[in-house]
Formats: sequence, C-alpha cells, structure tokens
Amino acid sequence: MKGINMIQLAKELGLSVSTVSKALGDSHEISASTKKRVNELAKKYNYKPNPFASNLRKKKGKQIAIIIPDIVNNFFALAVDGIEHVTMAKNYDTFIYLTHESLEREKALLEHLENGLISGLIISVSSGREGYGHFQEFYENTKLPMVFFDRVPDLLQFPKVISNNYESTFDATARLIKAGCKRPIFFSTQEPLFTNMERIRGFQAALSSAGLLFSEDMIVKCSYDMDQNYSALRKIFLSKKRPDGVFASIEKFAISLYQVCKDLEVNIPRDVKVIGMNNLRTAALLSPSLSTVSQPSFNMGKEAATLLLKMIEKKTYAAANDIIVLKNELTIRESLHA
Amino acid sequence: MKGINMIQLAKELGLSVSTVSKALGDSHEISASTKKRVNELAKKYNYKPNPFASNLRKKKGKQIAIIIPDIVNNFFALAVDGIEHVTMAKNYDTFIYLTHESLEREKALLEHLENGLISGLIISVSSGREGYGHFQEFYENTKLPMVFFDRVPDLLQFPKVISNNYESTFDATARLIKAGCKRPIFFSTQEPLFTNMERIRGFQAALSSAGLLFSEDMIVKCSYDMDQNYSALRKIFLSKKRPDGVFASIEKFAISLYQVCKDLEVNIPRDVKVIGMNNLRTAALLSPSLSTVSQPSFNMGKEAATLLLKMIEKKTYAAANDIIVLKNELTIRESLHA
Repeated sequence: MKGINMIQLAKELGLSVSTVSKALGDSHEISASTKKRVNELAKKYNYKPNPFASNLRKKKGKQIAIIIPDIVNNFFALAVDGIEHVTMAKNYDTFIYLTHESLEREKALLEHLENGLISGLIISVSSGREGYGHFQEFYENTKLPMVFFDRVPDLLQFPKVISNNYESTFDATARLIKAGCKRPIFFSTQEPLFTNMERIRGFQAALSSAGLLFSEDMIVKCSYDMDQNYSALRKIFLSKKRPDGVFASIEKFAISLYQVCKDLEVNIPRDVKVIGMNNLRTAALLSPSLSTVSQPSFNMGKEAATLLLKMIEKKTYAAANDIIVLKNELTIRESLHA
Repeated sequence: MKGINMIQLAKELGLSVSTVSKALGDSHEISASTKKRVNELAKKYNYKPNPFASNLRKKKGKQIAIIIPDIVNNFFALAVDGIEHVTMAKNYDTFIYLTHESLEREKALLEHLENGLISGLIISVSSGREGYGHFQEFYENTKLPMVFFDRVPDLLQFPKVISNNYESTFDATARLIKAGCKRPIFFSTQEPLFTNMERIRGFQAALSSAGLLFSEDMIVKCSYDMDQNYSALRKIFLSKKRPDGVFASIEKFAISLYQVCKDLEVNIPRDVKVIGMNNLRTAALLSPSLSTVSQPSFNMGKEAATLLLKMIEKKTYAAANDIIVLKNELTIRESLHA
C-alpha cells in the first residue's frame, strides 16, 4: 500500500485525524504510547509527513508576534499555549516579546516590528497611561492585522478577545458580601487598564446593589514588586480599619496577601475572606484553598489566534470590530467559607 | 546646568546609576515613587535618555533568540526574566520561541533561524532522545554564539549554565531517608535529559550511601499531561507497594501528587514524605507546605545572558568550554516533617 494519507492512517488506528497529526508532530498533548503506535504504522506504510517542519522550511513570512507584559503570571503563559495551539497547527511561527509592564519598551518593540517580516500581531497591552496612540500609528504605517486580548485598548477599532470581568467581579463581590463582609477591599493594578476598570466597576456595583457605601480607600493599588506589596498589605492589615474581605484582581496579589496573613496570624476566612483572579493549579491546594475567578486563558489565546489567522488568510479586515467575550469561572473554596 | 549625565543624576538623587537607569527605562523592579523622583529631576535638568528605545531604533541585529520548552513551568518563566534583565540593560532585543517539548519543532526552529538576523542564542533543550547533532550542525553553518542553560547537551562543546542537580538531589534524598523513608521513589521526565540523569544519579547515590537497595521501579516516568499523570500516580498510591517518600524532579509532578493524595486521603507527610524541585512562590503556602529544591532560575538566566553577550561583543569564542555551576537551595517544610 503506497501513498497512504493521514485520513487512512487515522482510520486504521481508530484515532482522529487531529490526534494522528499531533502524534506525528510530537505534540505534548499526545501520550508516548499513542505516538509510538502512530509512528510505527506510519513507518510501515512509509508515510513521512512532519508537515510542520517541512512547511517551516519552505514558508516565508508566516510569522506572528505575540506581545505580552509578563510570563511569570500564569494567565499569560496559558494564553500563549492557547495561541500556539492554533498557530502550530497552521504552520505559523510565533515569537514572544515581553514588555515587562513598560510602556516605553512596548513602543520601542512596535517601532522595531514595523520593519519586520511578520504577518500579524497578538497583543495584551502593558499600560493605559497615555492612551493607545502608538498602536493606531503602527497600524496606519503597516496595515498589519492585529488582535488584542484581555488587556485591550477599549476605544480603538481593533478586534478583541476579552472575558466578562464586570459580571464576574460583581458576582464574586456579591459572594463576599453574602458571606458577611461589610468592608471588602479591591486589590487593583496601578495602571488604568481596561480589564482593571471593568473589575472595579463590578466591585462598586455589587456594593451599591447590597446597600453598602463605596469609598475610594477600598481600592488598594498594588505593586508588581512582591516585596513592596508585602509591606503595603502588612500595613493595611495592622491598621485599625482592617478589611474583612478582599477581591484580588491579579494572581500574585492574592499570594502576597496569603503571606501577610500567615505571618500576622490573620485567619482566612474567619478574619478576612478572599477571592482572587487566578489561573494557578495550586489554588485548590493552598492552605486554605483559594476561591478563584479563573479566566479562560487558554481559550482566549485560541480565539485570538483563530481571529488573527482569519484576518491574515482572507486578507480582509472586515472583522475589525469583532469583540469576543468569554466567561470567567467562579469557584468557591475554603477562603470564603471554612 | 546643561548636559547633565546619568552619573550626576544618580549622585544628586542618592541612588545608584543602575537604579536611575532602570527608573528611566520604566523597569518593573523600581517603585513608582522612585521613578517619580528620578523623572522629576531628569525633567528639571532637561535630561532625555530612554537609551533602550532610541538604541532599538538605531540598532541592527542586536537580537537574541531564546529557545525553551515551556513557559507554564515557572522555572523557565523566571529564567527568561533573568535573561532579559541583562539583555534589556545592554539594549539587546530578545524573542522567545517555545518548543513545547517537541524535538521536531526544535529542529525546525533552528533551520528557520539560520537565515535570521540574530546575533546569538540561549537554549534549554527539549529532549535528548536523538542526541544533539542539530545544534552542532546549526553552529557549523552559522558560527553564531550559543549558550545552553539547565537542560544542556552534556557532550557538546558549548558554554553552559547549570545547577548542582546531582548534589542537591543527593541531599534531598538523604533527608527523605533520614525522616524515615524506606522506599522513596523518583518522579522522572520521560526524556533522557542531562538534568534528569544527574538527579537520578544523586537519588541512587543517596540510597546506596544509606544502605538501601535501588530498584528500577523506584523511577516513575511522569507525563507532562497533568491528567495522564494524575491517573498514573493514583494507580501507584492505590497499589500495595505504596511508596513512603517522593522526590519530584519537575514542578508540576509534585502538584499532581498533591492532588492525588488529597483525593485519596493519603496524608502528607505521615503516609508519604515529599520534596519537589520547585520555583513556585506558593510552595510555602500549600497545605501542607512543600519542601523544595529551588534552582536559582533568575540567576541562571542572568549568567547565560552575560556569557552570551560577552561572546557576541568580543567576537571570540574562547569561552566555548565554560561551564558555570550555580547552587540549588533545599528548603525543608511541612511535607517532610509535620
């Protein structure tokens, strides 16, 4: 039997074509034993695919830049995996640039990419401090397809993939109040990011809907520096006006809080109830287990990449106003109820 | 006062030059208040630096490729931060490629980079299955400086930055045995990686030095797929020959084990004592807190980048045999002693 194709291979193995394709591409999603079965049959029929490698050799310009603030944050690491899940299957090459939360670096990267050979960009912005003129300018100079995800330039006409931050923060805050919190606080980023603004809106609306008064000092602007953050939170939890509930809008803010509470012997959830935006697998294993709002990070990456490839391959920008909204997931654990 | 330079600025502020430089570059390492002070004085003297952005505009080919298996693993995320700490200060641009543990993808990336404009590479390998001929070939074709870190091609003549995996695994295993373990097991990667081999050597030597017999079934080959891993570990902990100690050589293997033990109500540390290779900030906050061997990931990245830039800027490859060995840190927590 000569000239066997992947569909025939899959049929004989009783596997899906996508599984066979991934097994032949040595994907980390496929078990070693499945890979072995697939490769043995492929060898038997002298089927030599490796479409990824061979296309990569041939291709020109099938390159996508991913610009994100940070990879130590698990949200972005998982989103990149989602993006590459799509781009690898379509033989696009991706490279990742980190802005380290620096607006200047973000601007410099864009200038640098203007002369590059990329065919599109997927971006999560570093700041909102000065607006987003640099993205608009980049687009006018290059006409390259761009998709934003999570941290998006809300007022610009680009396709965006976001999650329902307003609603999910509203729900989480309502749960804190229902569990007895009278003075919950919100751990915020320092930057005027759209994601953060939406979450603050949700927090405020939940207070208001429960008849609680909102005051500015309920918004605590955290630092990305864990040590600075630790000191600032320590001060808050040593003060007389100690909060009885926390919504932490960023993964590491909740970790800093846990460290402070452990060291000050503040009991979670008795003394303070906690819900955090979080994508860590360890959330359920913390002591006490952390109640979380999880963003669908992997899927957000997938959707962003799918949208971008559509724009690149159809050479049309009709999708420019698309906004895809995915749902966050609220999981209540011990940090809310012992 | 015209023509003030950064040294004078730093002096007047009572800060180090590097702090001023980072503050002007909007580094995430510097506090908002320090940035404000620096920028105000810089404005007063009309000092307009932003060397990173302006050099990036001018420069050609100051680009470094980072090739790593994965960024969801915190070790690699922190190592990238260490690399970029050095490259940003020297105005090099970096892009990150993920192999997702695929040897084929790694080979394809190298072929792709042969025609690129990069001036050097920092690499942590995806596998050791077929040896490392593709790296040697790449070097012969391009003569580009390359530095390997952590997962290194042990037999090739390239500069390497590693950590003392043999010694630290020996020490950790000795602690398991001292705490009473008679049948510890080792959670291993499936690939014949040098890092993993060194750790296994350390594990075996510690057993032997304590007069315990080593058997092949003490090495449990884990999967990178968390669900597969969960099932495999569950089976082991439901078997009669349940291990009484675990050394987990990869971050997520210990997380899978915690999940299994929680679900099977196997008590850590009473029923099984655990030490894991780990760089997660949450290790100390888990229930029970996890004893860890931490690699100096950030510093390994820094050393690798420093070595690479030296090679690039001196245009000499005299450093080709350099091996820098940093020390891992063993931290004993509740998972060993309640």
